[in-house]
Amino acid sequence: MSRFTPSVIAQRSTEQAIGFLMQQGIENADCLSLAAGFVDLESLPVELVLEAATDIFGAANSQHVLQYGTTQGVPAVRDTLRTYLADLENCKPEAIPLDQIMLTTGSQQLLSLLAQAIFDPGDICLVAAPTYFVFLGVLDSVGANVIAIDTDNDGMCPDGLDRVLGELAESGQLERVKMVYVVSYHDNPAGITVSEERRPRLLEAVRRWSTKNTIYLLEDAAYRELCYDEVMLPSIWSYDDGFRSPDSIPQQVILSQTFSKSFSPGVRVGLGVLPRELIKPVSDLKGNEDFGSANVNQHLIARVHESGRYQTHLNSLRERYRKKRDVAVSAAEEYFSDLTGVSWHSPNGGLYVWMSLPEQIATGFDSPLFQRATQAHKVMYVPGELCYPSEDENRPCHEMRLSFGVLQPDDLREGMRRLSVAVSEQMQEQGLA
Amino acid sequence: MSRFTPSVIAQRSTEQAIGFLMQQGIENADCLSLAAGFVDLESLPVELVLEAATDIFGAANSQHVLQYGTTQGVPAVRDTLRTYLADLENCKPEAIPLDQIMLTTGSQQLLSLLAQAIFDPGDICLVAAPTYFVFLGVLDSVGANVIAIDTDNDGMCPDGLDRVLGELAESGQLERVKMVYVVSYHDNPAGITVSEERRPRLLEAVRRWSTKNTIYLLEDAAYRELCYDEVMLPSIWSYDDGFRSPDSIPQQVILSQTFSKSFSPGVRVGLGVLPRELIKPVSDLKGNEDFGSANVNQHLIARVHESGRYQTHLNSLRERYRKKRDVAVSAAEEYFSDLTGVSWHSPNGGLYVWMSLPEQIATGFDSPLFQRATQAHKVMYVPGELCYPSEDENRPCHEMRLSFGVLQPDDLREGMRRLSVAVSEQMQEQGLA
Repeated sequence: MSRFTPSVIAQRSTEQAIGFLMQQGIENADCLSLAAGFVDLESLPVELVLEAATDIFGAANSQHVLQYGTTQGVPAVRDTLRTYLADLENCKPEAIPLDQIMLTTGSQQLLSLLAQAIFDPGDICLVAAPTYFVFLGVLDSVGANVIAIDTDNDGMCPDGLDRVLGELAESGQLERVKMVYVVSYHDNPAGITVSEERRPRLLEAVRRWSTKNTIYLLEDAAYRELCYDEVMLPSIWSYDDGFRSPDSIPQQVILSQTFSKSFSPGVRVGLGVLPRELIKPVSDLKGNEDFGSANVNQHLIARVHESGRYQTHLNSLRERYRKKRDVAVSAAEEYFSDLTGVSWHSPNGGLYVWMSLPEQIATGFDSPLFQRATQAHKVMYVPGELCYPSEDENRPCHEMRLSFGVLQPDDLREGMRRLSVAVSEQMQEQGLA
Repeated sequence: MSRFTPSVIAQRSTEQAIGFLMQQGIENADCLSLAAGFVDLESLPVELVLEAATDIFGAANSQHVLQYGTTQGVPAVRDTLRTYLADLENCKPEAIPLDQIMLTTGSQQLLSLLAQAIFDPGDICLVAAPTYFVFLGVLDSVGANVIAIDTDNDGMCPDGLDRVLGELAESGQLERVKMVYVVSYHDNPAGITVSEERRPRLLEAVRRWSTKNTIYLLEDAAYRELCYDEVMLPSIWSYDDGFRSPDSIPQQVILSQTFSKSFSPGVRVGLGVLPRELIKPVSDLKGNEDFGSANVNQHLIARVHESGRYQTHLNSLRERYRKKRDVAVSAAEEYFSDLTGVSWHSPNGGLYVWMSLPEQIATGFDSPLFQRATQAHKVMYVPGELCYPSEDENRPCHEMRLSFGVLQPDDLREGMRRLSVAVSEQMQEQGLA
C-alpha cells in the first residue's frame, strides 16, 4: 500500500553481510554458534557495574551525570581515559591532545562517523584482506570503493600497499584515496596482528602518497587489550610524528578503541584520538545524530578506571579467553589435522580462529557445507567471503571465521568437532578425502 | 598542514544553529541562560536510577544486560514501553505493533535516522513556523529543502498545509515532498500544541496529497508528558487508520518520543513507532551507525516503568515545571507588559516561552539587542530566527525563545528582569519607547 522509496544512502546500507549473518543466526538458533561476534556472557562484569553505579549515584551532586553532556564527550571522562590511553601508549597524558579525543556509542559509531565525514561516493578505501566485514558495510553505505591489499600473517603488506597506491597514482585516482583501514591487533576476522616492523612502514607508505590530499590511516585497535601471550606492541598511532611536532607534520593516524570487548558491549563506550582537522566535521555529524553519547555510560566507564577495577577485570578476562583460545586451537588440532588442505591461524589474542579449507570447498551461506553444518550437524560459522570487498571477483570463498567468544569450553570443543565432521563429509562428497 | 576536504555530507552538517548556540553558551558562560535547552538539574532522578540499577544488577543472571543487544532495541524493553505507550494512547498494547517500535539514543537519533532514510538531496520537508531548529540542521545535512507552513497558536494550519501541497503539485514538485514535521505538544520553540480539531485534518491533508508517493507525517511528541494544565490530547498518530486496518490503508504517521525531557537526557533513550516499511531501512542505517543503542540504558528505563517509579517521578516533575512556568509567565507580565509591541505565548506545557518584539528590534546573534543582553545585562536567549528555514528570506527576526528548563525560580525571574531592561533600552535607542 505504501509508495515509499528509501533514500540512496538507505539503499546502499541494506543487504549488508551483518544483516545476512544476523538472519542466519535467527534461522539457525538451534546451532552451536562459532559465528556470533558476541563476548563471553559469563565474563560480563555485573558487580563492577553496580559498584560503579553506586559510587556515582551515591555521591552528592551527581545529578549532572543524568543531564545532557557534550557532543564530543564529558571532558572529565576524556581526561580519565586519556590517562588510560597514555598508559597503553607508554607516554605522558599530555602527549595526547585532550580536545582530539572523542567518545562514541561503541567504536562502531566512530567508524561510521569517520566514514561519513571523509568519503564522498566514488572515493577509495584500502583495506587488509580479509578485514572486518561490518566496516565493509559502512564503506558501501557511503558509496566508497574498496580495494583489498595483500595481507599475510604479519598483517597488511607495506610493499603491497605501496604498489597499489602507485598504481592508483598512475591511473590518476590517487586523489580519490582517502583512507587505509587496518585492524592492528588480533584482528577480526583472522586473529592477525600487524608486526612491529610493518607498523611504521604502513604509515610511511601512507605519508609518501599523501601528495594530493591527506590519506588517513584508520587504526582499529578494538582487540588491543585482548592479548594472551605476548607483550603488547606499540600502536601504529604511536609512530605518527604529527601528534608530537604540532605544526610541521600532518596528523594521519586515527586511533579507534572500545570498551565493548574488554569490558561490556552493553555499556557501549568507544573512544578515538583524531587528527585535529577531523574533530569539527565528526562532531558536527555526531551533533546531528545524537548530541553526544549517553553521559551515564561515560561516567560508568571512567569510574571503573578510576577505581582500579578495570585492570583487575581485564586480567581475569584475559585468563578466561586465553583458556578458550587454547581449547579452540587444540580442538582444531585434534579434529582437523587429518583433513588434507585444511589449515588455521593460532591467534595470540582476540576472539577468532581463521580456518582455510581446500579451495574446492565453498563456505558461503548458499554452499553445501554451510547447509550441512547448520542443518545436519547444528553448528554455525561465518563464511570468510564476507570479509572481502563484495566487488572483488577473485575473493577467496573457502575460508571460515570461528569465534571462541561466546561458547563455553565444552560447547566450543563440541562445536569444533561437529564442524570437522561436516567438513570431512563435504570433502568426501567432493572426492577430496 | 593537512590537506583534507570534508565530505559533502559533512560540509552540509557544519555551521548549524546548534553549533552557534553552543558556542554562544561557552562565550557567555557568565550569563543567566534563558537559552539552554537543558532540563532542570535538581529534578534529575538520581535515586530512582540507582534503585533501578540495583534492581537490575542485584538480580541473578543479569549479565545479558551488559551484552550486545539488537539494533531495533531489546524486545522485552520494547514490550514494556509498548504498554506505556498504550496507556498514553488509551488503546490496548496489541494495537501497537511490537515489531514497529524502535529504541534509539534519544529521539534525536531517531529523527536523524529517519531523515537519512527518507530524504535524498533536493527532496522537500514541510515544517511548522517556527519549528525545532535542531531538526532544521538535520534536514540541511541530508540536503532537503525546507518549506515553512503557516502556523498560529493552534499549531500548523491544515489549510496552509493543503495550499502549499497544492502549489507544489501544480509546479510538478509533489513527488519530492517526503515529510511533514510537526512537534505536536507544547512545541520547541513556541510552546504551542496542535489543537484537537487540527490533528486529524493535518493527517487528512497529508493523505490527500500522497498520490505520487507516501508523504510521512513525523509527529515529534518530545514534550507530550510535560503538560501542566490540561488533559493530554490524543496524538496525531492515534488518528492514523493505517495502524488499525492492516493492509488497505498506508501507515503515514511516525510517532517519536523520548525520556530525555520526562526522565533524564543523560540516559538517552528515545522511542518511535514507525510505519512498517520504514523499519528495515532505518534499522539498516542504525546497524551501520552503532548496532543498537546501549542495552543497559534500555533496561534502566524499562525497570523504572515496571516499578511504577516513572509515573511518580513524572507527577513531581510536572509540579516543579508548572511552578517555573508560572514564574516565567508572571515575570513576563511584570517586566514586559509596559513595553509596547512586546507579546508572548503562555504555554500549557513544555519548557519554553516564545516572545515577540516590535519588528524593528532584531534579536539575532549579531543584533545590538543580543550584544546588549549578553554583554551589559548578562542574560542570554535563543534568537527566534534560528527556528525558521535559513533559506527563507522573509523569516521573522524579532522573536526570542525563553527557556524555563534550567534556571531555578529566583534566577528565572531575575533573568526575565534583566532581559526586559535590555529590550527596553534597545527600544529606547531605536526610538520605540
